[in-house]
Amino acid sequence: MEEQNGISRGTVSPIAMDFEKVLLKRWMVRSFNSTPVPDEKVWKILRNAIRAPSAGHLQPWDFVMVKDADTKRRLARAALNQSFIEEAPVVIVACANTRRSATRYGERGVRFYSLIDTAFASLIMLLTAVNEGLGASFVGAFHDEEVSKILGLPDQVRPAGIINIGYPNEKPARLDRIPLEKLVHHEKW
Amino acid sequence: MEEQNGISRGTVSPIAMDFEKVLLKRWMVRSFNSTPVPDEKVWKILRNAIRAPSAGHLQPWDFVMVKDADTKRRLARAALNQSFIEEAPVVIVACANTRRSATRYGERGVRFYSLIDTAFASLIMLLTAVNEGLGASFVGAFHDEEVSKILGLPDQVRPAGIINIGYPNEKPARLDRIPLEKLVHHEKW
Repeated sequence: MEEQNGISRGTVSPIAMDFEKVLLKRWMVRSFNSTPVPDEKVWKILRNAIRAPSAGHLQPWDFVMVKDADTKRRLARAALNQSFIEEAPVVIVACANTRRSATRYGERGVRFYSLIDTAFASLIMLLTAVNEGLGASFVGAFHDEEVSKILGLPDQVRPAGIINIGYPNEKPARLDRIPLEKLVHHEKW
Repeated sequence: MEEQNGISRGTVSPIAMDFEKVLLKRWMVRSFNSTPVPDEKVWKILRNAIRAPSAGHLQPWDFVMVKDADTKRRLARAALNQSFIEEAPVVIVACANTRRSATRYGERGVRFYSLIDTAFASLIMLLTAVNEGLGASFVGAFHDEEVSKILGLPDQVRPAGIINIGYPNEKPARLDRIPLEKLVHHEKW
């Protein structure tokens, strides 16, 4: 891997995209074509994920990388039949390892910090996918216990999101957003 | 404000920084100097925040922007005396408006989606601050009820993070991280 200006060039990495462009180009990809995702891109996504901030720097995340078709099929079923999970060449289940947060922070670690921090790592994965010329989606709607059983997660490790990664097979939809001025309050609510 | 090496020049629009560089340059800033933050940069941070993904596109976030010295002092006290909150010229409290998630998703919306989604928006704020030549930190350790009272938050609107924004008055510390291979599991835990 050769690096220049802090970005890697060579066979794997795309031309550096600027931050604003990555943000603008991100959308929830729900259809993937079958082109495989190079391992280097998957590892780049994971390496970036662990740069996320975390409460007390406890890094309460773990990742289960799934490529097996049958496991993806079962995950899709556990996720209320969102069948595009099966289409994604790579699925990474971001898990909140609440044990790591609980050691220092108890209940607030379990119910709050570990989720927030794993969400931070997950968003970095979504953005890095875009920067690598891929698309991704975060699925949070699933039966926790089923996903835990499929992946053999230990107690106190909670699936936080099923992140689907691949080359998009669709165009982004334009979504309306709540106007910013309705969401920003000054000094007080 | 003059800066070099890909960081902002001029008051408003920075030179685009590439995505990887923004990620690498982000750290939790816990000391700020008194240089005011241009409004345009604050609004850029907020405009980017609402590009975050959310479950069902319900956008369950609200933001309270605080510049008043007394309010910042009270927030710092509610946040276990993390006094750097007082130093930051701009403090934005990211709130999970659980009502918006609950309408469609009930309890899972309240305890899970609204937090995850507000974390997504918050991380975008931290990264955009870097892209704008600023520094920021996310504080999650605070007494929820006290923060709610200080800001007059309605029921069902939960403070998720106190985001402090300004020009850093410190150098980043180098943090060790859990090696990626200990965090990645293949196909199963």
